[in-house]
Amino acid sequence: MAQTSEHSLVRLAELEIDPAQVDAYKLSLQEEIRASIQLEPGVLTLYAVSVKDHPEEIRLFEEYRDEAACQAHLQSPHFEKYKAATQSMVKGLRLVETDSILLRAKPR
Amino acid sequence: MAQTSEHSLVRLAELEIDPAQVDAYKLSLQEEIRASIQLEPGVLTLYAVSVKDHPEEIRLFEEYRDEAACQAHLQSPHFEKYKAATQSMVKGLRLVETDSILLRAKPR
Repeated sequence: MAQTSEHSLVRLAELEIDPAQVDAYKLSLQEEIRASIQLEPGVLTLYAVSVKDHPEEIRLFEEYRDEAACQAHLQSPHFEKYKAATQSMVKGLRLVETDSILLRAKPR
Repeated sequence: MAQTSEHSLVRLAELEIDPAQVDAYKLSLQEEIRASIQLEPGVLTLYAVSVKDHPEEIRLFEEYRDEAACQAHLQSPHFEKYKAATQSMVKGLRLVETDSILLRAKPR
């Protein structure tokens, strides 16, 4: 059956990475995503993609159980580590707060 | 355990809707999302949100099993119905092809 999470909080992030540091950035991001999903009950979805042919343009889709889970995530050790490690790599960051319309995914 | 789908195809869509028709658009979009996830084995994720305080700015995160599943989706009866119904509502549409970096979600 299809899954739903209408009451969760979705945030989008659009990042521009220093082209010379894209590979290092992706490793840090992957480590942070794995830790967040594994360790934080309130982090429901972290999807990271880059724009085709523009590997320095990163788009994140982040879903949290609620606002408290989002705030807890920002203070987690793995997020702090990611933030410190990637500080010099991130040239631009735009956060987009959202209202959910409908979130549906196949059960995995 | 965390779930993965590294070999799937992710597409983003950014739409601008006629402000006077946002409610009608959202109903059509919700119907199309429900049908796609329920009826199409290759449609893995359809997440629809609007930008906070800008309900006319819609963002879609679409994940397909592969390119063939994406093409099949575009020819499905429910997508055709959605497209016809919302044609006059959509003022702008930008499709963003992507490369996946890492997609992780809690099992649902």
